[in-house]
Amino acid sequence: MSVGPKELVAPSARYSAAVLRELRSAFGDSSLPLYAMMRYHLGWEDVDGRPAEVGGKGLRPLLCLLGCEAAGGDWQRALPAAAALELLHNFTLVHDDIQDQSDRRRHRPTVWSLWGAAQGINVGDGLFALAERTLLRLRQTTSAEVALAAAGILNDAVILVCEGQYMDMDFEGRVDVSLPEYLAMIERKAGVLMGAAAELGALMAGNEGARAPLRRFGLALGVAFQMRDDLLGLWGDEAVTGKSAESDIRQRKKSLPVVWAMTHGPSLPVKRLRDLYGRAGFSEADVHEVLELLEEAGARKATEELVLTYSRQAIEALEGLSLLTGPAAELAALTQALARRDM
Amino acid sequence: MSVGPKELVAPSARYSAAVLRELRSAFGDSSLPLYAMMRYHLGWEDVDGRPAEVGGKGLRPLLCLLGCEAAGGDWQRALPAAAALELLHNFTLVHDDIQDQSDRRRHRPTVWSLWGAAQGINVGDGLFALAERTLLRLRQTTSAEVALAAAGILNDAVILVCEGQYMDMDFEGRVDVSLPEYLAMIERKAGVLMGAAAELGALMAGNEGARAPLRRFGLALGVAFQMRDDLLGLWGDEAVTGKSAESDIRQRKKSLPVVWAMTHGPSLPVKRLRDLYGRAGFSEADVHEVLELLEEAGARKATEELVLTYSRQAIEALEGLSLLTGPAAELAALTQALARRDM
Repeated sequence: MSVGPKELVAPSARYSAAVLRELRSAFGDSSLPLYAMMRYHLGWEDVDGRPAEVGGKGLRPLLCLLGCEAAGGDWQRALPAAAALELLHNFTLVHDDIQDQSDRRRHRPTVWSLWGAAQGINVGDGLFALAERTLLRLRQTTSAEVALAAAGILNDAVILVCEGQYMDMDFEGRVDVSLPEYLAMIERKAGVLMGAAAELGALMAGNEGARAPLRRFGLALGVAFQMRDDLLGLWGDEAVTGKSAESDIRQRKKSLPVVWAMTHGPSLPVKRLRDLYGRAGFSEADVHEVLELLEEAGARKATEELVLTYSRQAIEALEGLSLLTGPAAELAALTQALARRDM
Repeated sequence: MSVGPKELVAPSARYSAAVLRELRSAFGDSSLPLYAMMRYHLGWEDVDGRPAEVGGKGLRPLLCLLGCEAAGGDWQRALPAAAALELLHNFTLVHDDIQDQSDRRRHRPTVWSLWGAAQGINVGDGLFALAERTLLRLRQTTSAEVALAAAGILNDAVILVCEGQYMDMDFEGRVDVSLPEYLAMIERKAGVLMGAAAELGALMAGNEGARAPLRRFGLALGVAFQMRDDLLGLWGDEAVTGKSAESDIRQRKKSLPVVWAMTHGPSLPVKRLRDLYGRAGFSEADVHEVLELLEEAGARKATEELVLTYSRQAIEALEGLSLLTGPAAELAALTQALARRDM
């Protein structure tokens, strides 16, 4: 069974209006076009500033607020952290699109492709700064000590995200990326911010004992999520994902199926894969051959299994914790839905 | 009389070792090349990781620590803020060099020109994140409330810096930038972070009454500093400044002499200036003609006067405050030295 966007956002329905309100209030009322570019990226406006609704999945706010409830807290007190997480995530997306030279995101032109890379860099920087300012609103819902601890969790995470981004780009120029290297990269680039989201939920619930387990839960969930993303990047339906299925190959992304095939696949398809990746560029036919070789090497199946392994790891991190039954079940259901998603 | 780097850094001599120690400890001991790129940018290492010493002026830490002393505080308690300011400033420089496509800074190749724009964006993001984490160390030298207030001051400033950066880039595509528009841009892009630096000094001194005046001081000083930078960008000695004197013109930067000439200059040179700026590109001869026309229009002299006006404003902001005589005199002397600097 596969899963679309409606099923994914279902558990967040009771939070989404409040998260959006918190996010919007972070913007103030400046008429500077810089903020219109940010609202465009967030999917609230079209390129001419008219209202739109094409936002992302809002996974990190969801993990934070659901984590807070599961740990016995009042999710409304965690709203500034949830909004800050969403803004931070979106700052990384805006810069990622420039770094990858991606033209499209969520079926629309990317910020840099509309306004140029220079303004795009600044839009990302602005979202980062807004995220930091938004987090400080926690002072209105908790003590100064807890607000500072939250800032510490968030900033430690962002530094690791930058480390992961460095590795990801470094890997593009290499053929010999090992599975442990891939995992170190993906934990930082995709896992750590989800881990921080869930841990922030526990922090805001005042449930110290739940912090480390929820962080482990978010980390494993994030890794599984990114591995599923790697699959969709190669074999997903472009009409559904909004991303070109060829760009990951053309850009020599060392996504999990490629890393797995190169390091664990049988010698025949791997030799041919190395030949293809050794060339200057990929033709249309090369791209299709790469996809077939990866399947033949068993890389697609191995990646699907690793998605399930990390999803199980995430759910196991929740066990043994005395979490509230309802929200904890929702976290587990979310994990399973994400492992099967098609977009 | 003009002023070189030695005179400029003189008042900071008693802080510089401690600031460097604080900055270095922000980096931890990771061997990831991402951090080597940051250390290269900061001037601590050459491109091969060998020790170097070509750092910047360290003005923002200086304003913060001198401000703290002038306001009656112990400057050592403000060190995490001073280091955070320097890291933040350097994050903006790394991104600025990409946005301006500048090849050289401080007589060396820029980060992006060595490692590409994609890694350059990430180096800047990493410095931003390190700055935020470093600021949180204030918890070790002050209360949680004061540390949060410091984070608020810093993040409000960074958002305004991004607004200023948006405006600066937007102006490049326009001819009709007014003096008030230029001032709104330059206050954000150059003034606000210096204002935050001086205010953070007062905050860390526990001197609430000195916060607003020291912020006004830093803001005016930053504006004067940038106006002097505009002058040096057009008429400075490239061998001294390390920046090409032509790039500001070629890039159609709306620096103060250009804005002043276009809006306040006599009609004859201005008409010719508009012709030149209306063309697709600048030849070598055009660049020289622009410089002559700006002089002829009185723009160089007017800019020099505005530098002095804002420098006086900065010094006036210090008056009426009951600051410690020694450090306050150093702040005033620094203001005067910056107004005359050649690099």
